[in-house]
Amino acid sequence: MQEIDIIITGAKTILPDPGNAAPDQSAIAINSSEIIAIGPAAELGKKYQARKTINAQDSLVMPGFVNCHTHAAMTCFRGMADDLELMDWLNNYIFPAEAKNVNKELAYWGSLLAAAEMIKSGTTTFCDMYIFEDETARAAKQAGLRCLLGEVLFDFPSPNVKSPEEGLAYTRMLIEKWQNDPLINIIVEPHALYTCSPALLAAAGKLARDYSVPLGIHLLENKAEESQLQQKFGKGAVSFLKEINYLHERLIAFHCVCLSADDMRLFAHYGCNISHSPVSNMKLASGIAPVPDMLKAGITVGLGTDGCASNNNLDMFKEMSTAALLHKVARLDPTVMDARTVVSMATIEGAQALGMGNITGSLEVGKKADIIIIGLNKPHLTPLYNEYSHLVYAANGADVDTVIINGKVVMENRQLLTINETEVMQAVNEIAVEIKKSFQT
Amino acid sequence: MQEIDIIITGAKTILPDPGNAAPDQSAIAINSSEIIAIGPAAELGKKYQARKTINAQDSLVMPGFVNCHTHAAMTCFRGMADDLELMDWLNNYIFPAEAKNVNKELAYWGSLLAAAEMIKSGTTTFCDMYIFEDETARAAKQAGLRCLLGEVLFDFPSPNVKSPEEGLAYTRMLIEKWQNDPLINIIVEPHALYTCSPALLAAAGKLARDYSVPLGIHLLENKAEESQLQQKFGKGAVSFLKEINYLHERLIAFHCVCLSADDMRLFAHYGCNISHSPVSNMKLASGIAPVPDMLKAGITVGLGTDGCASNNNLDMFKEMSTAALLHKVARLDPTVMDARTVVSMATIEGAQALGMGNITGSLEVGKKADIIIIGLNKPHLTPLYNEYSHLVYAANGADVDTVIINGKVVMENRQLLTINETEVMQAVNEIAVEIKKSFQT
Repeated sequence: MQEIDIIITGAKTILPDPGNAAPDQSAIAINSSEIIAIGPAAELGKKYQARKTINAQDSLVMPGFVNCHTHAAMTCFRGMADDLELMDWLNNYIFPAEAKNVNKELAYWGSLLAAAEMIKSGTTTFCDMYIFEDETARAAKQAGLRCLLGEVLFDFPSPNVKSPEEGLAYTRMLIEKWQNDPLINIIVEPHALYTCSPALLAAAGKLARDYSVPLGIHLLENKAEESQLQQKFGKGAVSFLKEINYLHERLIAFHCVCLSADDMRLFAHYGCNISHSPVSNMKLASGIAPVPDMLKAGITVGLGTDGCASNNNLDMFKEMSTAALLHKVARLDPTVMDARTVVSMATIEGAQALGMGNITGSLEVGKKADIIIIGLNKPHLTPLYNEYSHLVYAANGADVDTVIINGKVVMENRQLLTINETEVMQAVNEIAVEIKKSFQT
Repeated sequence: MQEIDIIITGAKTILPDPGNAAPDQSAIAINSSEIIAIGPAAELGKKYQARKTINAQDSLVMPGFVNCHTHAAMTCFRGMADDLELMDWLNNYIFPAEAKNVNKELAYWGSLLAAAEMIKSGTTTFCDMYIFEDETARAAKQAGLRCLLGEVLFDFPSPNVKSPEEGLAYTRMLIEKWQNDPLINIIVEPHALYTCSPALLAAAGKLARDYSVPLGIHLLENKAEESQLQQKFGKGAVSFLKEINYLHERLIAFHCVCLSADDMRLFAHYGCNISHSPVSNMKLASGIAPVPDMLKAGITVGLGTDGCASNNNLDMFKEMSTAALLHKVARLDPTVMDARTVVSMATIEGAQALGMGNITGSLEVGKKADIIIIGLNKPHLTPLYNEYSHLVYAANGADVDTVIINGKVVMENRQLLTINETEVMQAVNEIAVEIKKSFQT
């Protein structure tokens, strides 16, 4: 008998990925960071002696969620200002609050709070863009959360870097510092086409190419941006991206609310990826991304919550249900964005969009053990005809009991094992007192 | 010192209703079924000696939610069929499943499961329309849940009644049986204008008038219904309702996706009420109700989850967030349906829509004690700048810790006190086995 770390057994259902169901009475064997076997419990029981057995009775076992776009530290601004005109919200609330309050401390504690919330709602990988991302990396590392993160790059100074050049240098530092880390991955992230000069965009593209890391950018989030870019470039934003060699498989574009049929053809042709954030797009009244068309065109589309200032939570269950519902009513067609498609977007498609499809997003032998266990024995999940339906239309983040990332149990029976919840909430509450003060003066 | 039943003390915030905040350090005194005082804890402590003290530390205390439209027993069909064309869904799944499986037993256990789910997500009053409603009344009574319920009336036989006349007689029986009950209230509910003859509609209207009870009807749920009724009546559906004397303050119309400006003027003029079900309208691709216009016209609009076959949950938090988000993106205006307005719709406006605004929907001295306590000390509710924002954009049903209805604690620290959860889930799981069989033949 081989001695291994963990065996998960007794689950009601195992969903290895949205295309397949595991055989009845399946178990999952984990050693070190990897899934080493999935098969009948009796068979695995004969082969492996596990140091820890997780009894997943009355539960659903599935890959953890991949949150393709967020700004983790913005948990500190959750609910600070809502229901406002975009420019009022940005200019009178978010930008001043950021300028006055964002520092290393806020970035670290805000990111750790985000990590707690993400783990507690079943996310095992997230893609982040913000300021002081080395602090977000530190928080994710402590939490044991897999991530792909990048310092936001734009033409103006940030609380972290005084210039675009410093932003690029900081990003290069992140890439080199974390390059051998099992959990922390780095992405180059110019903020958007309307906030970055052609020189900065070119340098960012080169940096991502030099290190073969992903490249992420906010793109065409609303009609106003679309018109502004059309006027600025004298052509569509996606045609401009083609010119500057941004259209490739390492590109992940966030939002893409205003993508045309031609844009989608280009995205599909070059293998570019998209992160869809329906809750944020609705809350900010940005518009409705043509996701069913993107999928039909063959584009890889993941889901992202966006930051807590514009959502205001990091729960991928809410993102899934909203994605499923929004496009049905927008198209007046109840068959689009079926539950299985949406679960796929929240797991394996998201992982692929981030260039991490080979290590996470599904339960497969040889992949990293990024696994969540969802308790089904609850009134709102009874009866059970179809697991995908329950995941999208009935469950919520609080239904996640246990989370394993990279082979390590980071939450068990809703108790976080890597984060002191009380401490992080207290730290963020103290930061929030200061944020409030900055609005009272 | 007056001896009383319950005092709630130590809450972080008390939201008596969306228009007001209670003074700091407030406590709530409850005796028998009623709120008898709200005021500073020290003051109430001198006046009242409570048999039970609820320490609401780190919590938000607010009125329970009012779910204005559901079909409780349909929890038995939760997730049975999704993502289908409306007529495929109805004719090949829902109608056959109902015809084969709905009986007293399903109605009772399905309703009790719904009651468990509603209490666990903070609903204290619900309005129901289905078959065998006396069983739903029995379940609600056992659960200690306040309700307004009616047997669905239409031209064809149901598993419960052989004819419209029997349906009317059954409704009259319900009215007389439950007329002195503190929790169970009866509504007359013709299903819709396309399923009821003019004679049945007239008789239903008369029955509601004779007993001064509310009158509820599905109305203009989608474009197809709007065209069908226009063709059938040679006029708009609301004009037809006016002719048959349905436009009055006791009317609650469910859905109203296709209401015109003229219709809204009539509704406002006659004091008619509307239940808005954004999740169901999105999932079935029915369309987007013009709710911001309804509110501007002065119509009382509550929120309803609709049944579990078309939602697939009874969580009013999801209904609130969806209502807030949907209309923002539909209007491309982030200021519509602000959080406070939406919380109001889910509580006091809903109570008023059901004709129960004098007894529930807000925390006021003299009203029934229908109160929920929400734990705030959680990562996803940290920090706290604005309670309404958290309720609509960040919280979910699992955040409700304790529920009081009519002065009785029905859930404490998430333990249901009136329902045996295990028993009801087992009963519904057994019913689901039979439902599944009916699709395998």
